[in-house]
Amino acid sequence: MRLTQPLPPNSTIGILGGGQLGRMLALAGARLGLKSHIFAPEPDSPAFQVAAARTIASYQDLKALEEFAKSVDAVTYEFENVPGETAGFLETRTMLAPSARILQIAQDRLAEKHFLREQGIAVAPFAAVDDETSLHQAIEKIGRPAILKTRRFGYDGKGQFKIGTLAKPDAAWAEIGKVPAILEGFVDFDKEISVIAARGWDGRAVVYDVPENEHRNHILYRSVVPATIPSTVEKKARDIAIAIASGLDYAGVIGVEMFVAGNEVLVNEIAPRVHNSGHWTIDACYISQFEQHMRAVAGWPLGEPVRHSDVTMTNLLGDDIAHWRKLAAEPGALLHLYGKAEARQGRKMGHVNRLTPRQG
Amino acid sequence: MRLTQPLPPNSTIGILGGGQLGRMLALAGARLGLKSHIFAPEPDSPAFQVAAARTIASYQDLKALEEFAKSVDAVTYEFENVPGETAGFLETRTMLAPSARILQIAQDRLAEKHFLREQGIAVAPFAAVDDETSLHQAIEKIGRPAILKTRRFGYDGKGQFKIGTLAKPDAAWAEIGKVPAILEGFVDFDKEISVIAARGWDGRAVVYDVPENEHRNHILYRSVVPATIPSTVEKKARDIAIAIASGLDYAGVIGVEMFVAGNEVLVNEIAPRVHNSGHWTIDACYISQFEQHMRAVAGWPLGEPVRHSDVTMTNLLGDDIAHWRKLAAEPGALLHLYGKAEARQGRKMGHVNRLTPRQG
Repeated sequence: MRLTQPLPPNSTIGILGGGQLGRMLALAGARLGLKSHIFAPEPDSPAFQVAAARTIASYQDLKALEEFAKSVDAVTYEFENVPGETAGFLETRTMLAPSARILQIAQDRLAEKHFLREQGIAVAPFAAVDDETSLHQAIEKIGRPAILKTRRFGYDGKGQFKIGTLAKPDAAWAEIGKVPAILEGFVDFDKEISVIAARGWDGRAVVYDVPENEHRNHILYRSVVPATIPSTVEKKARDIAIAIASGLDYAGVIGVEMFVAGNEVLVNEIAPRVHNSGHWTIDACYISQFEQHMRAVAGWPLGEPVRHSDVTMTNLLGDDIAHWRKLAAEPGALLHLYGKAEARQGRKMGHVNRLTPRQG
Repeated sequence: MRLTQPLPPNSTIGILGGGQLGRMLALAGARLGLKSHIFAPEPDSPAFQVAAARTIASYQDLKALEEFAKSVDAVTYEFENVPGETAGFLETRTMLAPSARILQIAQDRLAEKHFLREQGIAVAPFAAVDDETSLHQAIEKIGRPAILKTRRFGYDGKGQFKIGTLAKPDAAWAEIGKVPAILEGFVDFDKEISVIAARGWDGRAVVYDVPENEHRNHILYRSVVPATIPSTVEKKARDIAIAIASGLDYAGVIGVEMFVAGNEVLVNEIAPRVHNSGHWTIDACYISQFEQHMRAVAGWPLGEPVRHSDVTMTNLLGDDIAHWRKLAAEPGALLHLYGKAEARQGRKMGHVNRLTPRQG
């Protein structure tokens, strides 16, 4: 189903997933008078704390999904690993944004890369890997170093293995669990950036200023805005994100991770959802990525992505949250905590946006 | 009870009242990982939509209050008409901020005026009115025009009656219901302003830039920041607010409404809570009045009240909300809707903050 009219205030947006992204979506929707109904299997989902309604059920529970679909006016999600059957089931019963087709592409690295290549967008060389034979052929074609990645369910560096000049490919194949995979050429990038774009049902797209990202242990450590990249590179990055959103006939916020190598911009991966590298928009922009997403899902006009301040967003992982008192007292630091009970190692517990007046 | 340590993240703040102020407090608390438990008698309270827990019960229901007090780590409120017994009951069981003593002063115009006068703060001339005899004596003392106001339960111009040069005082007395009242001299002011200040348990206070307020039909229509007042007047206004907060040994956000007449600043009334004329802080400041209040109630350090943009906040009353599509599409306009089902005349349905880059 597609929206033909914007949903009026007091409508209910269903959100699959009860983590921090679902939570921040619900908070942003509430500003606009939109109610959130969170659907998640974990009884202590942080998003439940701020939602008008909650369903605790498995994503495979068709009876619960049926009830959920009936109780909401549109559905979106906070993570790309929503099972295809779940998305398909919901899409025949209510409005789903982004669509099941987009999910299908974005949750499979190979399908994603094919889509990007068809759109004429630069990516690292890649080849499908389904067994040891195709792995060796792929290395032959792409060379070393290269990265072997599972096609599905990878995030924060999970399901990835670098094959260096001297490494044994079969060990990598075993390491990732001998599941359908993709071999990607290793990109010796200068910088990692991402583009947070939003596109409405009417095809209008807006793009936020580009953050420069720093990862540690494959997890986003911080995003700095503005990025220190030439304006030609920034323009190229923005154009790529808009081309992708348009090519997917996208509705909602999309995060596109990119590598910058010289003047070249290569797309690393697409996240069909609000993105960690866009959390700075909550405090540094008139309208956050979360509000844009809820606007797009509800068929509302998107807002201008005006940025009023320069900003560095730093994730608080695991025990980092122990410093909350110091962070709360730091001038110019805006603290966001996600309401998670347990600070496991590497777990995203919150983030801090450090603002300074915009320079030019 | 008083806090000796800040409440850690994931603590629960109890909020009496489920309207838009409770709702925006809950949303601000959620940013900090603080859960909200809303206590309100109306089953369709807008704040319920964003709260981790809710109690639907009367403010006189001691059993429900007992349970509520047990389930939270501190209690605050969104309105000053919390019954004194309710506040007292809660204060013996948990931490209440602002205190029951402050409520007692702020919910009685006469007690409030006495307090202000004791603090050496300028107010309009006033006199207690308890019957027709004291009304005539009060008019004798204060002169005309004057305003007869009920001592308790007045808001948005309700319970007020102007006694003009030719008016019959007894009609005014009948009009306000012959309840304990106060007669105040009419102030021929140039401007109405307010000061939104926050004070922590440690006695540290911060003050936002002063908004200039415009009322229509006794209801706040809009607040403009910065106000067009001389810096000496602004300083006087800020100092008054800090003196009041300090005099009350206040914890939380306080709104102080003032009249400016020439270089004189007179206090009109005190709101012991977040205030409608501070709603612009959500979008124009690093840290909103709502977050400051939750910080103060939880014993957290207050944030600097940095304002990054100029702003006009306009209330959306009753049918104004019908224009939501146009407002959502207006560049620079940040829309806030309160999730109320019915747009009754004069009802506060939302507000819009219109931002422009800060001028100097």
